[in-house]
Amino acid sequence: MTPTAHERVLDWLDSRTAVLSGEEVEVTAAVGRTLTAPIDAPADYPASPAAAVDGFALPAEATLGASDYNPLPFPLGPSGAPVPAPGRAASVASGEPMPEGADAVIPLQDVELRDGVLEVFAPLAAGENVIPAGREVRAGDRFLEAGRVLRVADAALLTVLGLTAIPVVRRPRVRVLVLREDVRDAGGLMVRSLVHRDGGLCPQPERVENAALGDALARGGCDLLLLVGGSGFGSNDHAAHALSRAGEVVHRGVAINPGETASVGDAGGVPVVVLPGVPLATLFAYDVLAGRAVRRLAGRDPGWPYGTRRAVLSRKISSGLGRLECCRVRIVDGHAEPLAVSDGHTLSTVVRADGFVLVAPTSEGFAEGTEVTVYLYEQRL
Amino acid sequence: MTPTAHERVLDWLDSRTAVLSGEEVEVTAAVGRTLTAPIDAPADYPASPAAAVDGFALPAEATLGASDYNPLPFPLGPSGAPVPAPGRAASVASGEPMPEGADAVIPLQDVELRDGVLEVFAPLAAGENVIPAGREVRAGDRFLEAGRVLRVADAALLTVLGLTAIPVVRRPRVRVLVLREDVRDAGGLMVRSLVHRDGGLCPQPERVENAALGDALARGGCDLLLLVGGSGFGSNDHAAHALSRAGEVVHRGVAINPGETASVGDAGGVPVVVLPGVPLATLFAYDVLAGRAVRRLAGRDPGWPYGTRRAVLSRKISSGLGRLECCRVRIVDGHAEPLAVSDGHTLSTVVRADGFVLVAPTSEGFAEGTEVTVYLYEQRL
Repeated sequence: MTPTAHERVLDWLDSRTAVLSGEEVEVTAAVGRTLTAPIDAPADYPASPAAAVDGFALPAEATLGASDYNPLPFPLGPSGAPVPAPGRAASVASGEPMPEGADAVIPLQDVELRDGVLEVFAPLAAGENVIPAGREVRAGDRFLEAGRVLRVADAALLTVLGLTAIPVVRRPRVRVLVLREDVRDAGGLMVRSLVHRDGGLCPQPERVENAALGDALARGGCDLLLLVGGSGFGSNDHAAHALSRAGEVVHRGVAINPGETASVGDAGGVPVVVLPGVPLATLFAYDVLAGRAVRRLAGRDPGWPYGTRRAVLSRKISSGLGRLECCRVRIVDGHAEPLAVSDGHTLSTVVRADGFVLVAPTSEGFAEGTEVTVYLYEQRL
Repeated sequence: MTPTAHERVLDWLDSRTAVLSGEEVEVTAAVGRTLTAPIDAPADYPASPAAAVDGFALPAEATLGASDYNPLPFPLGPSGAPVPAPGRAASVASGEPMPEGADAVIPLQDVELRDGVLEVFAPLAAGENVIPAGREVRAGDRFLEAGRVLRVADAALLTVLGLTAIPVVRRPRVRVLVLREDVRDAGGLMVRSLVHRDGGLCPQPERVENAALGDALARGGCDLLLLVGGSGFGSNDHAAHALSRAGEVVHRGVAINPGETASVGDAGGVPVVVLPGVPLATLFAYDVLAGRAVRRLAGRDPGWPYGTRRAVLSRKISSGLGRLECCRVRIVDGHAEPLAVSDGHTLSTVVRADGFVLVAPTSEGFAEGTEVTVYLYEQRL
């Protein structure tokens, strides 16, 4: 059994995982979702000039000639009301619309207030401390592009613009089947957490007996099917048998380590990824194959969803040619210290690691002292 | 009104936000939660030696003398059953316990199988392709420390070890009050999303009229109270008035920009952070003050929850002395391009930005060409 180069498997998976269709959702629930269409501002925002600071709104023209030697008095009108005459001022709060008749704001700390009369010690320019209409966005501005993964501030801007529902890619529905023979269901737990991370919907993993596997695969009802366990090349190759009965095995075996017994195929029109049941292999095969598929369906960046940093290796990494390998590393004194390579079993290396280094199929590894890219399990390292 | 240095405000907030007590949760729901106690392995894992590859288990001793010129035959016993005699082998799958009587595994691809008889062409060493008992963890090993924020792989390792419930810090309950005068509730939406990001529980923000604010503050029922809006120093200082009636304003005004009208205090024993209602100021004041409080209560790292990268400024950043300032930047051709500083209003700069640069109170900014730390809104840049 010669495993297929992982790039070929990704090409096939990519061909089967186009971005899903859209749906309208409330802006309040849209953070992290992907826009299916650009968003243009329906109107200027702010709609009219607004105060940039807490202070007093007045007509700038009337402050001409004010100085320390010639403080000008401005009787204070009621807050928010139009400034009644060129010689008066009105209290205004940062962000509030400018009262009619005023075109500048004098900050609270720059004036003295005596018996309801403001003393102004310097002239103001028209527009001073005023946010002009349309400062955030102008009517018609395309302020969010299709494909944007919505951030908290995006949702806030949509809200102040009065947009309450927006079109986003629907969340991929991912079914996870776990072969019952696997002792404790670490695989299902991991895969479900990771599907959520990647923007998919994932109900509880379904535990399935070998005999029921074909039926479970054929049942469909999802955008992507992940099967954990039974991926072996030997006597435990239940997944491939069941998949070939329920549909088609397209690539059996993928040149990644850990995880080379992974497979991909199709069951009733649904793409299927078979992940090995040994937890560390489950994890890496998920990350290389399935996570990418989920992110593509969700309209997200298909690349690795980890922050990176560059670090110099404190020991060499040896790796086999022909396979994409994952070497867990710890960051020690700013250096990357390899924990293990070519070991498909010790999940505890992931627990002890800060991240991992990828070794390309064309590489036999890296010498001590090489600067490498570390993918970080936690973003802040 | 002289705002208080933000470090003094943080010191006070820190004194009021010790890590919360613990609760037991299912491992399946514990990813992202903080351990209150270290976890020691209850037993060796694997409990007994296991196969490291798909292949055939046999006693290494019996392969002595095998070579290309002298292939040794091993009749195959039933899968998983004890190897019945030194001269026989049993099929075994990667990760499965070694059958009794076998101490080595010959990989599938290294043998030939003829009519149920294996041909072995090279001698095996004892332990070859076998995962020894306790390879992941040994009984009593402290494999997770108190304070660990649980990752997916940690949960998987706990699961394979048979641990189903673990002690974690309970999630901080955060109430968000929004002053009704704020036009559209962008602030409540943002704050709620960010509380979730930081590990807190946050029901829907409560919209409150000025007159009802004191009662709402006094009601408690949470670990932290956030009030959005009404923070002004001028005519809109409803928050400070209500807080001083319901409890105590400890610091009014914080030397951060945007956000200097933020306040902190206490209402009936619950720490309160008052956030300005202007969205960009809400966002920065949340990040400096409230987010840290939520993360501390949740037992997480109190530092900034953003990935960082170093980048050279393509234009200078000017900033006022005495305040912590937030300057949004875009990453353009690997350089950091400032979008705005000292502007508490244009939320759209956050939408356009890739991240932000902090300017310390002791700094007047950075010259063009300076290498600075950029906090990234998305981790992958």
